[in-house]
Amino acid sequence: MKDIYLDWAATTPLDSDIMRSALEFSLRAYGNPSSKHWLGKEARQALEESRARVMHSIGITKGNFVFTSSGTEADHIPIFAILERLRRASSAGKPIHAIISSIEHSAIEEQIRVLERLGLQVSRIDPDSKGHLEAEHVASKIRNETVIICIMNVNNETGAIQDIKAISESIREVVQLKRMKKPWLHVDAVQALGKLSIRDLENYADSFAVSAHKIRGPKGTGGLWFARPPEIFIRGGGQESGLKPGTENLFGAFAFSLAAEKAALSMPANQEKALILEERIIDGISSIPNALIIPERIPKDNGFVPSIISMAFPGLGGETMVRALSDCHIAVSTGSACMSNIHHAERRVLKAMQVPEDIAFSSIRVSTGPLTTLQDIDSFLEQVEVLYRKLKT
Amino acid sequence: MKDIYLDWAATTPLDSDIMRSALEFSLRAYGNPSSKHWLGKEARQALEESRARVMHSIGITKGNFVFTSSGTEADHIPIFAILERLRRASSAGKPIHAIISSIEHSAIEEQIRVLERLGLQVSRIDPDSKGHLEAEHVASKIRNETVIICIMNVNNETGAIQDIKAISESIREVVQLKRMKKPWLHVDAVQALGKLSIRDLENYADSFAVSAHKIRGPKGTGGLWFARPPEIFIRGGGQESGLKPGTENLFGAFAFSLAAEKAALSMPANQEKALILEERIIDGISSIPNALIIPERIPKDNGFVPSIISMAFPGLGGETMVRALSDCHIAVSTGSACMSNIHHAERRVLKAMQVPEDIAFSSIRVSTGPLTTLQDIDSFLEQVEVLYRKLKT
Repeated sequence: MKDIYLDWAATTPLDSDIMRSALEFSLRAYGNPSSKHWLGKEARQALEESRARVMHSIGITKGNFVFTSSGTEADHIPIFAILERLRRASSAGKPIHAIISSIEHSAIEEQIRVLERLGLQVSRIDPDSKGHLEAEHVASKIRNETVIICIMNVNNETGAIQDIKAISESIREVVQLKRMKKPWLHVDAVQALGKLSIRDLENYADSFAVSAHKIRGPKGTGGLWFARPPEIFIRGGGQESGLKPGTENLFGAFAFSLAAEKAALSMPANQEKALILEERIIDGISSIPNALIIPERIPKDNGFVPSIISMAFPGLGGETMVRALSDCHIAVSTGSACMSNIHHAERRVLKAMQVPEDIAFSSIRVSTGPLTTLQDIDSFLEQVEVLYRKLKT
Repeated sequence: MKDIYLDWAATTPLDSDIMRSALEFSLRAYGNPSSKHWLGKEARQALEESRARVMHSIGITKGNFVFTSSGTEADHIPIFAILERLRRASSAGKPIHAIISSIEHSAIEEQIRVLERLGLQVSRIDPDSKGHLEAEHVASKIRNETVIICIMNVNNETGAIQDIKAISESIREVVQLKRMKKPWLHVDAVQALGKLSIRDLENYADSFAVSAHKIRGPKGTGGLWFARPPEIFIRGGGQESGLKPGTENLFGAFAFSLAAEKAALSMPANQEKALILEERIIDGISSIPNALIIPERIPKDNGFVPSIISMAFPGLGGETMVRALSDCHIAVSTGSACMSNIHHAERRVLKAMQVPEDIAFSSIRVSTGPLTTLQDIDSFLEQVEVLYRKLKT
C-alpha cells in the first residue's frame, strides 16, 4: 500500500537533498558563531548568509530577520515585548489592550490567554462564515490603549487568506483619524510561506513569523521578521540581536535558507499544481452524498490557498475518519496538530465561523504539497467515500 | 597547518556518524509527533524513545525530561515558573526572593536581571578564590520568601565543580530548622553532562538543564529534567508536557539521545584522557614565565573538571591572544562565547573570584574534548609561549 500524505499543513516531508547538504556543511562549520576564532567567524558568516538568503527568498528589503526555534517562538517575541508595558499599566490601574482574531494559531491564542490573566484586555475578532476578517471590523476595535494586533495570514485549518494589506490600511486610517499611536501589527505567516508571496508584509506589518518545517525544511527552526526591534523580555547570551538567546543553530538556519530559496523558485509551479488538486478535491467531495466542503468554496477562490481544505462528513466523527484513513495509509488530520494537546481549543476555528457543532466535529482537514499527485487525491476520494458509507451512523 | 580545536566548552565538533544516522532516520520519520495518523504515531514513538534514551544515559530514574531548543531555554523554564508568583507578590507589596551564584551562565544571570527589574529580590553568592561556593553560605541566604535557587554544576570558564549534594543538604537543613517551604533548586548542568556523572542530581535538585551541542550532538537542542512540573508561563500547542510549545524537533531529540548514549559509554575513557591533557596543560603553562593558571590548581584536583582550564598571560590582552592563536589555527576563547555579545558581562566570573582586573583581562580559556590529542596540547603550548613573548607589553 502506497503511503498518501495529505497533511502538509501539519508538517512536510523533508527535502532530503537540502537536509543532507546542510548537514554536511554543518559538520564542517561546527564552530560557535559567537566564538572569536576562525571557526566561529566561518560559522558566523554562514549564519549571516543564511539570514540573507531567507530574506532574499521571501523578498524582504528592509527591517531585520532573526532565527528562532519555531514559528511558535517567533509568534511569542512580539507578545512578550508588551509584558513590561503590561506590568507598568496594570500597576497604574490603566490596562493595555490587544486585538487578535478568534482563529489564530494556538501559539498566539494560548499565550495571549496567559497575558489576559495578567490583566491584558483582549478583543477577539470573529471571521465571517467563510473564515475571513473584515478589515474595518478589526480597525474599529482600536482604542488609545491598544498596543498589539495579531492577525494570521493564512488559516491553518480552512486555508482562508486574510487581506493583511486592507487590515493594515484600515488600522492606519483609524489611528490617523483618531490621532492615536499605531499598535504593533504582528502577522503569523507560518502557513503563508511558500504558498503565496509574503514580500509585501514588510510594508504592512511590524513583524511576521515563519517556520522552516512547513516548506520541507527542518523542524526546530523558525524566524521572525521585524521592522524595528521589539522590546526584549527573554534574555541570555544576546544571540540573534538579543531576541533568541542560546547558541545559534547553524544547521537549522542554513537548511531553512535553502528550503526558502527552493520554495520561492518553485512557488509558481506549486501554486498551479495546488489549484488542479484543489479542483479535484472540491469536485470529488461535492459528489459524495451529504459530504461538504467547509466553508463552502469553489475552486480557484482567491480568498483561500488551494492546498488547505476542510471538509465534513455529517454523522461520522472527524477523529474516526482520520483513524480509518490512517489504517489505509492516508494521512489527514482533524484541524491543527498543535491543538491536539489542548482540550478547550477543539474546533475553535470552525466554531468562530459559526459552523454548527455536529458539522465541526465531523470535519477533517486535507492539505496538499509539491509531492502530492492527482492519483493521491483519487485514492483519497475513493477511500473516503467507501469509509463514509461504511462508518456513518 | 592542522586545525587545533581547544574550545570544546563553547561547542563541540559534531559526531558525524550520529548526525548522519539521525538525519536519515528523520527523513523517513517526518510526521508531526502530534498528528493522529500512523506517521504522527511513528514520530511520537521515536520521540518518546529518544526521551527514554537520554534519561537512561544520564541515569535518571524518576521525574520527567522535556526537549527544549537550547540549554538556555531549559534554564529559563524554572525561572519563568515564578513569574506569576512574582506578579501576585509584587502587587501585594511582598516581594519574593531568589538566590543565584554570581558565576551563573548568562542564560540564568541575564534572565534573573529581567525579573529583578520586575521586583524580584536577588541574592548573588560569590564563590571563593577557587571559584567554589560554600554550601552553608548559599543556604544561609534563604528567607521565608525565597522561591528559587539557581546553582550551576560546572562553571563554563574555570571548570570549577560545585558540590550540589552539599548545597542541597544545607538547603534542606535550613528549611527544616526554620520550618520554611523548600525553594526550587535549579541546576544548570550544561557543562557537566558528559564530563561527570549527573545521575545524582535527581536526588538533590528540582530541575536541571542540559544541552546536546556540548556532547557532540546538534545545536538547537537542549533539555530540562524536573522532579515535578514547573508552572507554565510560555504557552502554545501544548507540546513537551506544555513546557516547550512548537512542533517537536525529532531530528534534534533523536541525535541528542544518541550523543548522550555515546557520551555516557565513553565517559570513563574521556575522563582519564582529560586528566592526562590537564596535567600537560597545567605543567606547560606553569613553566612559561609569568603565565599562570586561574584559579591556581594542581592536576587531578577533584574540584574541577580537567577539560576546562582558564589561564592568564599578564601584560597581554586575552582577546589579542585568542586572535593570535586563531591566526595559527588554534581555537581557544576568552571566557564564554555566550557573553561575547553582552558588554557588562565581561569577565564577570573571574571578577566574582576576586581575580585582579588586569589578570582577568589577560585570561583565555582552554577546553579539551574526546578528540583532543597530546600533540594538540604541545603545539598549543609551543605557540602560546612564542606569542606571549612576542606580543606582551
